[in-house]
Amino acid sequence: MPDFTDNLTPRYDGAATLQAERNGSAIDAEELAKHLLSRDGFLERQAKVLKVLSKEKLFSKEQQMNLSRPERYHLGLARAKAIQRIVRREGWDHEDYKICEYLNDEMSPYHLHMTMFVTTIREQASESQKQYWLPKILNWDIIGCYAQSELGHGSNVRGIETVAKWDPVKKEFELHSPHLTASKWWNGALGRTATHAIVVAQLLLPKDGVSPTVYESHGPQTFICQIREHGTHQPLKGIAVGDIGPKYGYASMDNGYMLFDHYRVPKSAMLSRYAEVSDETGALMRRGHPAVVYGSLTFVRGQIIMHARLVLARAVTVAVRYCAVRRQFHDRDSQNPADDEMKVLDYPTVQVRILPLLATAFALHYTGEYMYNLYHKSRESIEKGDFGPLAELHSASSGLKSLCTMLAADGIETCRRAMGGHGFGGGSGLVQLNADYLSKPTVEGDNWMITQQTAAHLIKKMTHAVENPGAEPQDPTDELFHFYLKNRPHRIPQNVVNRDGSSINDQALVDVFQWRAADLSYRAYQARILEKKPWTKLMIKLHALSRAYSEQILVTTFYNALTSPSASTLSPPTPETLRTCFRLYALHTLDASASQFTLSNAVSPTTLPRLPDALLALLSALRPHAVKLVDAWAVPDWLLDSALGRYDGRVYEALFDMAHRRNPLNRTTFNPDWRSEEIVLGSADGGKHLLAKL
Amino acid sequence: MPDFTDNLTPRYDGAATLQAERNGSAIDAEELAKHLLSRDGFLERQAKVLKVLSKEKLFSKEQQMNLSRPERYHLGLARAKAIQRIVRREGWDHEDYKICEYLNDEMSPYHLHMTMFVTTIREQASESQKQYWLPKILNWDIIGCYAQSELGHGSNVRGIETVAKWDPVKKEFELHSPHLTASKWWNGALGRTATHAIVVAQLLLPKDGVSPTVYESHGPQTFICQIREHGTHQPLKGIAVGDIGPKYGYASMDNGYMLFDHYRVPKSAMLSRYAEVSDETGALMRRGHPAVVYGSLTFVRGQIIMHARLVLARAVTVAVRYCAVRRQFHDRDSQNPADDEMKVLDYPTVQVRILPLLATAFALHYTGEYMYNLYHKSRESIEKGDFGPLAELHSASSGLKSLCTMLAADGIETCRRAMGGHGFGGGSGLVQLNADYLSKPTVEGDNWMITQQTAAHLIKKMTHAVENPGAEPQDPTDELFHFYLKNRPHRIPQNVVNRDGSSINDQALVDVFQWRAADLSYRAYQARILEKKPWTKLMIKLHALSRAYSEQILVTTFYNALTSPSASTLSPPTPETLRTCFRLYALHTLDASASQFTLSNAVSPTTLPRLPDALLALLSALRPHAVKLVDAWAVPDWLLDSALGRYDGRVYEALFDMAHRRNPLNRTTFNPDWRSEEIVLGSADGGKHLLAKL
Repeated sequence: MPDFTDNLTPRYDGAATLQAERNGSAIDAEELAKHLLSRDGFLERQAKVLKVLSKEKLFSKEQQMNLSRPERYHLGLARAKAIQRIVRREGWDHEDYKICEYLNDEMSPYHLHMTMFVTTIREQASESQKQYWLPKILNWDIIGCYAQSELGHGSNVRGIETVAKWDPVKKEFELHSPHLTASKWWNGALGRTATHAIVVAQLLLPKDGVSPTVYESHGPQTFICQIREHGTHQPLKGIAVGDIGPKYGYASMDNGYMLFDHYRVPKSAMLSRYAEVSDETGALMRRGHPAVVYGSLTFVRGQIIMHARLVLARAVTVAVRYCAVRRQFHDRDSQNPADDEMKVLDYPTVQVRILPLLATAFALHYTGEYMYNLYHKSRESIEKGDFGPLAELHSASSGLKSLCTMLAADGIETCRRAMGGHGFGGGSGLVQLNADYLSKPTVEGDNWMITQQTAAHLIKKMTHAVENPGAEPQDPTDELFHFYLKNRPHRIPQNVVNRDGSSINDQALVDVFQWRAADLSYRAYQARILEKKPWTKLMIKLHALSRAYSEQILVTTFYNALTSPSASTLSPPTPETLRTCFRLYALHTLDASASQFTLSNAVSPTTLPRLPDALLALLSALRPHAVKLVDAWAVPDWLLDSALGRYDGRVYEALFDMAHRRNPLNRTTFNPDWRSEEIVLGSADGGKHLLAKL
Repeated sequence: MPDFTDNLTPRYDGAATLQAERNGSAIDAEELAKHLLSRDGFLERQAKVLKVLSKEKLFSKEQQMNLSRPERYHLGLARAKAIQRIVRREGWDHEDYKICEYLNDEMSPYHLHMTMFVTTIREQASESQKQYWLPKILNWDIIGCYAQSELGHGSNVRGIETVAKWDPVKKEFELHSPHLTASKWWNGALGRTATHAIVVAQLLLPKDGVSPTVYESHGPQTFICQIREHGTHQPLKGIAVGDIGPKYGYASMDNGYMLFDHYRVPKSAMLSRYAEVSDETGALMRRGHPAVVYGSLTFVRGQIIMHARLVLARAVTVAVRYCAVRRQFHDRDSQNPADDEMKVLDYPTVQVRILPLLATAFALHYTGEYMYNLYHKSRESIEKGDFGPLAELHSASSGLKSLCTMLAADGIETCRRAMGGHGFGGGSGLVQLNADYLSKPTVEGDNWMITQQTAAHLIKKMTHAVENPGAEPQDPTDELFHFYLKNRPHRIPQNVVNRDGSSINDQALVDVFQWRAADLSYRAYQARILEKKPWTKLMIKLHALSRAYSEQILVTTFYNALTSPSASTLSPPTPETLRTCFRLYALHTLDASASQFTLSNAVSPTTLPRLPDALLALLSALRPHAVKLVDAWAVPDWLLDSALGRYDGRVYEALFDMAHRRNPLNRTTFNPDWRSEEIVLGSADGGKHLLAKL
């Protein structure tokens, strides 16, 4: 309905503002986008899939925030099914399918089917099991999930309580939940969707062989079983299963619970590539190296880093564009009252929050690439039976998963707050991103738990380096530790910023991050190995060690990437701007833990008072390129789903449109008089429509 | 429906665990609760109101997370109205009413009516205006809101674009929105509920008096006007108004937008206690001191601190109780495989996140009390026409609002992550608390903007102290600055922790926080006054200054409270445990900005390597009392609404009950087959129920 608001425009023209920002930087955003996002044809696939999905009403994000959580699951399932049909109709491959999930931007009830479910079958099933299951899975005749974590056990997989007891007479397993805390919990797609599940359970075998009186546990093993009846989709007898209810995010996903009451499955249910129960002796026969399982865990964590970079880039895209359009207050020192109000992005107090995160997105990118390459290189060694690189890879991926998901999760919220009041609104486009992403710091290995693994590995390596000073280094960590041990007696702390704060020694920056990581490793070695301190008492320091080590990887790989041939082909001023990002990331990180750097003799204390001005100079240098740099991440408006972050800068028009034309609440008139129980004016139902739902 | 899960119990008994925790500490939680929460009969009122509200189905929180955002507004309005009826039925006073809002725990569509709306009338209306409006307001015959912020202007009130143009002929004002960005925005209760609004608009008066050709602005003034028609509740002609749509939190509140199209209001609409337009000359006549308005702003900010303490206490209550019940992993150094898994709260990596926040809740409490008393003391001076204390009070309240809301907002998320996977679930009880509270860092003065006011005030005071070394100190800040200037030449940095980390000098702790705040003030004075640096370039340092100054207030008031008579009457071991909280808060805060303390010569660098062990010792000392200390905050289970944080420790039973028996999604069976468009099994509607909502 047309009204007087139709002719109103914002006081400042956001579109012209962003255009001026783009004109003000010579960075070739398209070239940089290709540099960042060419792997597996990402950009082309994104464009192709976007064109199809954005046309379908079902994928419209416009009303998502107005739906209830149960409706969000309905919608999630409808979309998951529609994607299957579209993929077939368009003849898309699995990479395209993954782009569908990325652009659809919600946890799909089908997500686990083609990730943990099929991966587990591929990696842990025997050849005959694969022959039986893979066609059903790839044809989506069954829908699978992965039921490992339980109500009582998440991080500690060895502590899970579900048991699988071998019946040597019937040659079957009996799945059973002895306690309430044995209930499977959190498992995606289990709640309402899945027909089948991978179930991780403690394998119980008769101690004395075939005729059981006493059982003993052989640790967690994986089983595949049907959980719901074909056709009725009702739980099979002996299974209690359902959705666990609303969460922070993942509204579209049916994270589930499941309990077993003496539920019997055939022998073939146990995935038997690496272990099988003998029909004759009732004993467990193991074959192959179980370490390969860590390979896929490492791969998943590598993907988490690559994902973190896109999530952070998305939040920063919104914040940079909006803060470039938003004006508030005149410059306090301005002499001319006719001056425009300042762009919020020109405030150093806004820059210092957003621009280091922009730099961090690039840091995450190059480390993601590094881990990806390392994984594939190590894979070759593993195929040849050399499991040496696996421990190093696993350690690095654990520490990085913890650091990178923390940076991205905290970064979203930092961006939101930097946007002031409108950041709290639905128009920010960050509400669901934030709610969903907050799962990352605790899933796939809790961020404070897995750093202990990284620290344990580093203590082991430092011990080896101390005890074998002449040994050949196997990897960069070995090299670093040998370098540290050799130079420790005559270390001179570095001055990374020169006296007037105007120039930064990049090589020295890399050195101080490496030195601090090595020094913390040595102190941990001292405390644990030499002084034999209790592990528990060291935990806080070990967490700090893992973080320092991971920050060192980010700084080192960022630096190496910038000095590599592929970066040098970028046209100016992109290379020097990326160098500014590198310095900003490194210096900002150093500043946040400054005393750690001086206490470890990495950095000279004289550097510290120079940091604020050096950081301010870097922020100023990056500022003119900020809009172009976020453009380079190529996040489509359709995915951003943000009034504040729109590519065209028409922020206020979009916010107003959402409120005035697309808000269903405005279609209802209410009765605000407290004397009446009526809620909707004229309905006289006294709120009965609500009470029925409570 | 009974099933096999009914007889299952958790592996470890949570109720017995929490009971053992309580038995293990001699703290009298009830006594401490009275010490903390006796003002205005809080505890008795809470018990009284809880008894009534918790019986009414309408106030059940059980299904809240399953409702859509529009439904949450319906429910919010129904509850707001019901509370009005209950308050009258029970004969409750305004303090009881506030407890209703606190326990109902959602932003009520009526909230602004009895806060900003009535307060503005009381403070800024003339006597005759008050006589006209107050009876209608107090009888709730009209429902009011406060429309200040706009689409284009939040923090910068002077920049708002709505105009009120004086018509000297008709003796009326014309309210008008010249741009889209002039739209009122964010104003609570405006969207669907309010019948009337306080409108802040730029007053435009004819430059040459009565016969206008050129108008000039006289800055923002407040107007009261009706916005919706009585009976139909439709917007009056010339007004476009509605709800702005979904947000991070505040689902129950109708934050609104409003535009005016040459909307005419009578002269009496302008609140005229301090300013009035002359009928004869068309000139603005001002009377009285506008600074009193800051008084109520200061009061609101003081309440924000008191609220922050309860919010943080609530999050910490959930985290402490759950982490005391949750067990995961055996001690790495344990020799006995039969040992129970460790309580998560016994991990220093969990303690270091939660226990400093527990200490912070107490720090916030004592500063809230201090500000409350300061406000009332200053109020007396102001009544006598002495506005001297107002600037100091306003400065302190700005810095503290920024710091305290940040601590609470970040604290909720820290608690959530410390709870691992289950922290992400709806059973945490933190989902809505978090979503709602995230508004606080940006409302009522953005946290990074208002610190500039604090810093400006401190620079002014330092300038005065430098230039008037003999002047009589007017307040603690003056005293500190004089002390600093006198001792600066021969300052000896303090060692707050002794050599073996076992003893802490409390007096020195207070001193180093004060010294650092004074030193940063002096550096800011140097940079701005002596070196005349641009304000913008100093902003980051000024923000840091405000934070340091506010942390100093928290540490000082905490220390003073513990050494005051009222604290010393508490029975042991409460006083020494509170002392541990003080040390933990102070040392943890010092550790987070360690290099700032050494660079300002506050703390000796030899202290820094001693901090980790000193902190670890404080965590250990506090650990046995953690459960009792959170009990003392007396947050009822009904308000906590948390499976994880239940008083009785029956965490897993409650989580399972939510999922298995109270989740509406589990009452629907779905069709998971991608080949079918059917979503709900047997419905065959092809998802049409969803498409209609998109």
